[in-house]
Amino acid sequence: MTHTIVASATKEVIIGFDQPFCVIGERINPTGRKILNDELERDDFSRVESDAISQVAAGATVLDINSGAVFSGKMAADPRYADNNFVEPMLMPKMIEIVQAVTDCPLCIDSSVPGALEAGLKVAKGRPLVNSVTGEEERLEKVLPLIKKYNVAVVAISNDDTGISEDPDVRFAVAKKIVQRAADFGIPAHDIVVDPLVMPIGAMATAGHQVFTLVRRLREELGVNTTCGASNISFGLPNRHGINNAFLPMAYAAGMTSAIMNPVALPVGPKKIAEKKAEVEAAGIILPADMDDETFVKMFGLGSTNPRPGKEMEAIRAANFLLNQDDGGAAWIAFNRDPDAALGGARGRRAASGRASRRG
Amino acid sequence: MTHTIVASATKEVIIGFDQPFCVIGERINPTGRKILNDELERDDFSRVESDAISQVAAGATVLDINSGAVFSGKMAADPRYADNNFVEPMLMPKMIEIVQAVTDCPLCIDSSVPGALEAGLKVAKGRPLVNSVTGEEERLEKVLPLIKKYNVAVVAISNDDTGISEDPDVRFAVAKKIVQRAADFGIPAHDIVVDPLVMPIGAMATAGHQVFTLVRRLREELGVNTTCGASNISFGLPNRHGINNAFLPMAYAAGMTSAIMNPVALPVGPKKIAEKKAEVEAAGIILPADMDDETFVKMFGLGSTNPRPGKEMEAIRAANFLLNQDDGGAAWIAFNRDPDAALGGARGRRAASGRASRRG
Repeated sequence: MTHTIVASATKEVIIGFDQPFCVIGERINPTGRKILNDELERDDFSRVESDAISQVAAGATVLDINSGAVFSGKMAADPRYADNNFVEPMLMPKMIEIVQAVTDCPLCIDSSVPGALEAGLKVAKGRPLVNSVTGEEERLEKVLPLIKKYNVAVVAISNDDTGISEDPDVRFAVAKKIVQRAADFGIPAHDIVVDPLVMPIGAMATAGHQVFTLVRRLREELGVNTTCGASNISFGLPNRHGINNAFLPMAYAAGMTSAIMNPVALPVGPKKIAEKKAEVEAAGIILPADMDDETFVKMFGLGSTNPRPGKEMEAIRAANFLLNQDDGGAAWIAFNRDPDAALGGARGRRAASGRASRRG
Repeated sequence: MTHTIVASATKEVIIGFDQPFCVIGERINPTGRKILNDELERDDFSRVESDAISQVAAGATVLDINSGAVFSGKMAADPRYADNNFVEPMLMPKMIEIVQAVTDCPLCIDSSVPGALEAGLKVAKGRPLVNSVTGEEERLEKVLPLIKKYNVAVVAISNDDTGISEDPDVRFAVAKKIVQRAADFGIPAHDIVVDPLVMPIGAMATAGHQVFTLVRRLREELGVNTTCGASNISFGLPNRHGINNAFLPMAYAAGMTSAIMNPVALPVGPKKIAEKKAEVEAAGIILPADMDDETFVKMFGLGSTNPRPGKEMEAIRAANFLLNQDDGGAAWIAFNRDPDAALGGARGRRAASGRASRRG
C-alpha cells in the first residue's frame, strides 16, 4: 500500500488509498489575493496566522504555504524586489515560522522558486510536502536533488517543457517520466504525489472522465498518490460549490487521495450585509437599533461573519465515512453536532488544536 | 451497451451507463405516510397529483407509484379490506390514471401484490418499469410471466427465500439467479434493473464499499443496469442529506444508473415558521402585520413554503455534468439560473412539462 508521510514536529499525516482524504488548505497564497499580498509587503503576517487557524479548524490536514508575492512598492526603491528569486527565499521562512507558531498542522512548501523551497525546507519542522516539481527539465534538475537531500515528499505536476497537454495519455506519460527521474535520484514512488491536472468541465466536457480515469491509472500502474487543484473543475461555471461538492467524492472514489483546496466558507462581508439590510428595510421589517452584524447575519440565514467549514468539507467528511475511513462515523457525528466550530481568535485556536489531535 | 427503455405514452427514458442518471421519484407511496394513506382511503387523490407534479418539476425522470395502503376504516365495515390482494389491485389503476392525467413522465408500478402489478400494467401507457421481483421462488414464478407478457422492464431486488444477506457475494449470486431465471422466460438482461440492496453505513462500516464494488460487478459481469433505495445509506445518522449528496455521485461514478429517491426538498411547514417567528420576536425584530408566510420564510433564509428540488438533485445534476451527460452544461446552467422553478399549481405544471420535454 502506497503511503506518503507528511509531518510537522509533532503530528503525522499519511496520504494513502486506505486513509481519510488529505485536505491541503490553499488559502495562504498571495497570488491573486491583493490584500494578503500587500500585508506581506508591510511585514504584516496576521492574516497568515488567522488563515492557518481557520483552515485547520475547518478540517485541513496539511497547510499549503505559497510565497509568490509581488512587492511593487519595494521594487520602486530597490530593483532587486522585481525578482522572485530574491523575494521568495526571504519571505517563505518567515511565513512558515508564523504558521508553525500557531498550529501543529504539517506544511506544504509551495513555490516556483527552488531557492524558496530550500529556504522553507531549512526551517520547516518534521517532514513537509514540497509543491512542486514538473516534467520540465530545469525543474527536475533543481527540485529533485532538494527532495532527496531533505528526504521529503513532492507534488509532481503533469506538464513539461511542451506545456500542458489536453491529452490525458500525454499527462500520464509526463507523470511516469517524473517518477522515473525521481527514482534515478533515489526517491521512491511513494514520495511522489502526482497532480494529473484538472481541466474545467465548462471548457472540456470529458474533463471529469479524464481525471477519474487518470487517477485510477496513476494508482494502478505507477502506485502513486494523487492530488489536484480541485476547484479548477468548476472554473467559469455558476454554483461552483455544487460542482466541487460532487467532484471531490467522485475523484476520491476513483482513487484520488488528496486535494489542494479551500476548506473554509468565506465569512459574510460588509457589502452582503448592507444589501440584505436594504432588502429587510424595504420589506418593512424593523430591526432593534443595537443588533450586531453577527446576530443579524445568523437571524436572516446568511451564514456567519466568522469563517466556517465550507460545503466541500461536508462532502469530503461524508465520503470518508462512505469509504470506511471514519470509524463508526465518529468524525461525521462530531462534525454535524457543531459544524460552526471554526471561529476566529482563542476559541478557534482551541478548536484547531483539538481537531488536529483527533486527526493525528 | 445496456439500455433499459422505460416510456410513457409520449416520452421515453433510457437507463444506461452512457445516460444521465435516472431519478425514480419515490414520494407517491402510502407506506409510513399516514396523511396520504388516509386520503387514499377517502378516494382523495389530490396529493398523488401534486406529488407527481412537484417531483417531475424537481427533476424526477420516472415516477414510482406504490399502492401499499392500509384501509383500517374500511376494514371494520368489510373484512376483505384487510387483504392487500383485495385493496391494491383496485387502488393501483386509480393512482396510475391520476398521475397519467397530470404528467407525461414514465411510471414505475410498485407493489408486493402481483395482482396490483397486473392491474397497473393494464392501464399504464407506454412501457412502465415494474417494481419488483426478488429471488424468492413465489415472486419469480408470479412476476416474471407478467414482465414477459407485457414486455416491460423490472427491478430485481437481491434477496431470496433466505432473506437479505449481509454478504455482498451472496447478493450478487441472487441477482445472477434472477437474471438467469428471467432469461428462461425470454426476458433479456437489459430489461432487469438490479437493486443490490444498500445497507446503512451507520450499522455497517463497509456498506459504501459494498455498493460501489457490487455495482461494478453487476455492470461488468451481468451487464445489467442498477438502482437502489438511496436514502437507506444514511439511515439513523445526523445530516442525512450530507451523506446522500456524496453517496449518489460516488455510486453513479461506480456505475449505478438510477436511484429510487425523493427529488423534492420538503416545504417549510407551520411548526418551523412558528418557531422562527418566536425567535425573531425574542430578538426584538418587528415584522409588518401583513407579511405572508412565503415572504417571511424567504426573507429569513428558511427555504420556501413550496416544494423545491432537494440538495440531492444538485448533486445528481453536477454528477451528470462531470460524467459528460450534460452537453456543454446546458442543464446545469439552466438549473442554477432558476433552482426554485418547482412550484405548485399551474406554474409548477408548466415547469414540469417544460423540463420533461427537455429531458425527453
